[in-house]
Parts: sequence; C-alpha cells; structure tokens
Amino acid sequence: MGVLFDRVCLIGLGLIGSSMARAMKRGGLAGHIVGAARSADTREKSLELGFVDSVSDNMAEAVEGADLIVICTPLGAYKAVAKAIAPALKKGAIITDVGSCKSQVIADINAHRPDGVHLIAGHPIAGTENSGPEAGFAELFDGRYVILTPEAKADKGALKKVEALWKAIGSQVEVMSPEHHDRVLAITSHLPHLIAYTIVGTASDLENQLHRENADADDLVKTNEVIRYSGSGFRDFTRIAGSDPTMWRDVFLTNREATLEMLGRFQEDLVALQRAIRWGEGEKLHDWFTRTREIRRSVVNQPSRSPDADLTE
Amino acid sequence: MGVLFDRVCLIGLGLIGSSMARAMKRGGLAGHIVGAARSADTREKSLELGFVDSVSDNMAEAVEGADLIVICTPLGAYKAVAKAIAPALKKGAIITDVGSCKSQVIADINAHRPDGVHLIAGHPIAGTENSGPEAGFAELFDGRYVILTPEAKADKGALKKVEALWKAIGSQVEVMSPEHHDRVLAITSHLPHLIAYTIVGTASDLENQLHRENADADDLVKTNEVIRYSGSGFRDFTRIAGSDPTMWRDVFLTNREATLEMLGRFQEDLVALQRAIRWGEGEKLHDWFTRTREIRRSVVNQPSRSPDADLTE
Ligand SMILES: NC(=O)c1ccc[n+]([C@@H]2O[C@H](COP(=O)([O-])OP(=O)(O)OC[C@H]3O[C@@H](n4cnc5c(N)ncnc54)[C@H](OP(=O)(O)O)[C@@H]3O)[C@@H](O)[C@H]2O)c1
Ligand SMILES: NC(=O)c1ccc[n+]([C@@H]2O[C@H](COP(=O)([O-])OP(=O)(O)OC[C@H]3O[C@@H](n4cnc5c(N)ncnc54)[C@H](OP(=O)(O)O)[C@@H]3O)[C@@H](O)[C@H]2O)c1
Repeated sequence: MGVLFDRVCLIGLGLIGSSMARAMKRGGLAGHIVGAARSADTREKSLELGFVDSVSDNMAEAVEGADLIVICTPLGAYKAVAKAIAPALKKGAIITDVGSCKSQVIADINAHRPDGVHLIAGHPIAGTENSGPEAGFAELFDGRYVILTPEAKADKGALKKVEALWKAIGSQVEVMSPEHHDRVLAITSHLPHLIAYTIVGTASDLENQLHRENADADDLVKTNEVIRYSGSGFRDFTRIAGSDPTMWRDVFLTNREATLEMLGRFQEDLVALQRAIRWGEGEKLHDWFTRTREIRRSVVNQPSRSPDADLTE
Repeated sequence: MGVLFDRVCLIGLGLIGSSMARAMKRGGLAGHIVGAARSADTREKSLELGFVDSVSDNMAEAVEGADLIVICTPLGAYKAVAKAIAPALKKGAIITDVGSCKSQVIADINAHRPDGVHLIAGHPIAGTENSGPEAGFAELFDGRYVILTPEAKADKGALKKVEALWKAIGSQVEVMSPEHHDRVLAITSHLPHLIAYTIVGTASDLENQLHRENADADDLVKTNEVIRYSGSGFRDFTRIAGSDPTMWRDVFLTNREATLEMLGRFQEDLVALQRAIRWGEGEKLHDWFTRTREIRRSVVNQPSRSPDADLTE
C-alpha cells in the first residue's frame, strides 16, 4: 500500500486507538506512529506490543511534527485534548477522531483548532465491549463502515487523505453531516445500549431485593436465577451492558438531544404494547411482531456486514 | 440409555417438538413416537425427516395408548388441545409440555384433565428464533436447563419419569413452582423479547417516516441506514425481534401479570436514566453502567451454560 502519512500521532491507546495503530502497521500506512497515553501502564504495554514506534505522556510533545492526529479518548476528554495540543500542531496537519458522537465533538475541537489545521471527524462502526491496549486487534475495521463527518467548509484534500487511510485499513467509508450521523447512531447504537444497561440493572435490583427480603420463599426470584436462565433472551443484553462505563457515560452526555428524541419514540411504542398486553389485544401484538421479523431478514441478508455477531459499536 | 416410554405422542411438531423427537430418537428413549400436526405439510416433512414413527391429523387418535403426551404448540392452542385429547387419554398417562409460561397453562390443561392422568408441566430454556419441523435439531437441549413446575399435589412417580427423560436427553433439570417460573422468565426472557420487539419497530417506523417525508434531506435518517449500521448495537435486538410472532403473542397474553410487573420496574429505571441524561448527571450514569458490567462478568463466567450465543429462549 505504501506510507500515507509520515508521522501519525494517536491520542489514547485503548481498544480503538490500538486497533488503528495495529491496522496501520499491518498495511505499512504510517512512517512513524507516536502514541500519547495518560497512564504509564498503557504506554509500556503499547511499546511492548509493538503497535507504536514511540510513546509520550505529554500530548503537546507527541503531536509535534505529526501530519495526522487521531483522537481516540473518551468523548469527555476532547476539550482538554484539543486545548493541550493546539499550540504544538504543525501547519497543514489533519486532526481526525473515532468518537461515537460527532456534532458536539466537532465544536469542542473547533474551539481550539488553529488556522491552517484541518479537522475531518470520523467514527468507525466497529468495536467490542472490551477496553484497553490489549483488547485491540488489526482486523477490527476490516469490511466495516467508517463514517466521516466533515463540515461543509472542510478542506477537500484533507478529506481525501483520511478517506484513503480508512480504505487502506480495509473499511468502507461513508460521508454524512455530523447531525445526520448523530441521529442515525442514536437509534442504531446509543438507544440500544441505554436499554440494555437499563434492563440489566433492573434485573439485578430485582434479584438483590428479593434475595434480601425473602431468602427462603420459593415463589420469588432467587439470586443467580437471572444469570442461570439468561440464555432465554437476557444474555444478549448483558453483553451490550458490559461495555465501558466511561465511554458510554460520555456518549449519552454528548449526544443528549438525539438520544432523548429516540428514547421518547421508543417509550411511546413500549407503552402502546404494554396497553395491548393489559387489554389482551392479541392482533395488535401479532401485527407488530410480524413487522419486526421482516427487519431481521433485511439485517441478515445485508451483504456487506461482517458475519461476526460478537462485534458491537 | 434404553426406552423410558413405550409410546410418546407429540402434539405440535415445530422447532421444539421436532427437536424433542430427534433427541428421543438419538437416545432411543421412546418405543414409538407419534406426532400430531395440524398441517399436511408438517406431517409429511416430519415423516420424511424421520423423527416420528407415525403421524396423525387427529389429536384424540394420536394420544390413544400413549404413556407420555408432550404438548408443543403455541400457548394459545392449549385449551383446545386439552379438550380434544381428554376423552382419549389412557389411565396413568403423563401429560407434559414445553410452553414458555406455566401458571395459566396448567389451569388450561387441568380444566379438562381426567382423573388418573398426571400433569408435569415443563419448559426447556433452549430455542432459536426459527420455527417449524425443519428448524429442529437433536442437540438443542444438550447441557441446557429444563424447568419442571409440578403442582404441590402432583404424582411423585410421574415427576421422576419426566425428569429422567430430560436428563437422558442431556438437559439439567430444575424444579420450581409455576408462579416462580413465570416471574423469573418474565425478567430473563419475556421482557427482553418485548423490548427488542419494541425498539426494532420504533427504528423501522422512524426510517419509513423520514424516508417518506424527506426523501432528499441529508440530515434525516434514510432508509436502510438503520440496517447498515446495525452492527453498532441494534443487530442483537433484531435477532430477538425475529422470533415467531404467534408464539410470542401467546407468551405475553399468557404471562400478562408478571410481564407487566417487570415492565413497570424497567420503565421506572429507564425514566431515571433518561432524567440523568437530560440533566447531565454523569456520575449517576457511570455508577449504573459499572454495576451492570459486573453482571456481564457473572454471565460469562457461568460454567454450565452453553457457549453458543446464538441460542435464545
Ligand atoms: N469501544 C467501542 O466499541 C468504540 C467503537 C467506536 C468508537 N469508539 C470511540 O472510541 C473512543 C475510545 O474508545 P475505546 O473503546 O478505545 O476506549 P478505551 O479502550 O477505554 O481507551 C481509551 C483511551 O483513552 C485514554 N484516556 C481516557 N481518559 C482520558 C483523558 N481524560 N485524557 C487523556 N486520555 C484519556 C485512556 O488512557 P489510559 O489507557 O491511560 O487509561 C485509553 O488509552 C471513544 O471516543 C469512543 O466513543 C469506541
Ligand atoms: N421457540 C423457542 O425458542 C421456544 C423455547 C422454549 C419453549 N417454547 C415453547 O414451545 C412451544 C412451541 O414453540 P415452537 O418454537 O416449537 O413453535 P413452532 O416451531 O411454530 O411449532 C408450533 C407447532 O404447533 C402447531 N400448532 C400451531 N398452532 C396450533 C393450533 N392452534 N392447534 C394445533 N397445533 C398448532 C404447529 O402446527 P403446523 O406445523 O401444522 O403449523 C407446529 O407444529 C410454544 O409453546 C413455546 O412457548 C419455544
């Protein structure tokens, strides 16, 4: 493939950052990769695993001379990162990122971005529920979608370069506005995660409450039964609800409006089904369940998706 | 293993019925298996696939002389089945079933059950989202839990026999009261299915609405984007929401009270998280998400569960 960027700086070396580094190494896409990480532990592991050429605990130092800077921290750190690196950025450098929300994140970076430095924000639709530099792997983005959300006035050359990088990594690139991205992801990703987090907590509270109050009664849910019978539907939810708490706290706080809109729609529908159950309206339930079955078929038949069902956001 | 029942009659030859038949054949557990099915198509396929020795379109005829009768139809058919077979049941015969709800189902069967015929209701915690005689397979119940819910006054010998059958099939048997079963399954299975059905419908409506109203606008969700980006969390829900509409309509109507109770608990928690998002209460979100992560660990570490994540209720 050949080198696309002479010097790349990754800020944050967790699941996504380290996977990007590995994928760039695999393709020989970067001349030198420098990784900035907060903790000594992460820096040491990253060097040891060999997906970076050098590391630094100082973000400003790390971005010096870099042609591409990729922000791979949780969304809540963006403001501080943008501020810290601003004075050290090279003229003509491109900033990109991998964050799960886009509108707010672009505003956070733009507040500090110097003239002559480009921003092409991005979001790979690939991930697992694991975190940290050891969780990453080079194949994470193979065949997956990456959404880029340049502003209307963004530099076309910079967009082309970031697009070329992701294609060389093996991903499929889609370009859309930040606002559009945030609504699509609110329904396909953020709301599903919120719901999974909720029900797993609800179930756990129920178990604990009943165990405490009625340790011996037979007609109440006993500790561990929720887990024991989790194969009956619950298990999929626990996997999603095992995702990183910091990352997801930041997602909901950052994509607040779109998440609340989708949540409102969901709740109206849930209440309608609840009412149908209470009043025994079997036909209404059957119609709804028949319609959703069609959607499942479309998902399964979608050609370009990775078949690995264990990959999430 | 040896024959445990000389003559077994399965009523309903779909995913669960045909899988039980296959598992009994594999173990040589039944002398003769007769299958009762509504449609000629199902009867022909069942004979062709060879998991039954004979078939009948007449349930009363089919149960004649049977030592064990297993009801494997959707729950909504139980009353009619119980009524139809009652006059033809042999003295000492055992009725069992595989239905996903227990209290209501036991009442439905008891309304017609003759004296001297035993009832040991059951529910295998195993399944897929597929239906029909071709969807079944002998290994479906291997290493999975089967819950038996005999009434307090049920015949101990009959319970032993049904227990022995499931153990010979390869399952792990748990005995509990019907009411307890219905609450546990409401939270581990029925509520997760209801939620998945809801959100998949919500997402589909959103797509259709926006596509209709604003086919060209860029900042709205376009048709197929929900499916395209389903890897980001939504995909797991679509799988659950692809389950059989008739079966699940019957589950919600049959286990109404417990489902509504769990739904109420879930909604309270969801509203609390919604409020935390609206008011930017990051710590509250982080605490909740940290707690649910622990539960994921317990599920993953559970030794006796099948590792096949593609099996649901
Ligand atoms: N996980 C997914 O499935 C997924 C998918 C697509 C996009 N994303 C996005 O990718 C980004 C990173 O997610 P991830 O899963 O890679 O997370 P991760 O594995 O937890 O890694 C996060 C990295 O950021 C660093 N970091 C955390 N807080 C920081 C702070 N306040 N200042 C500076 N550095 C900080 C961490 O440093 P230490 O190692 O020193 O703690 C770590 O190196 C997020 O914005 C997320 O929205 C995630
Ligand atoms: N699917 C699961 O994951 C799962 C797991 C555990 C327990 N269960 C329970 O197992 C039972 C059967 O589920 P399944 O998945 O095996 O369903 P299925 O594949 O749809 O098969 C249902 C069978 O019942 C027959 N049937 C349907 N309606 C009937 C009626 N009104 N009268 C007589 N027969 C009728 C069907 O006949 P035709 O073939 O002629 O249409 C078919 O043979 C349900 O009670 C369900 O709660 C299901």
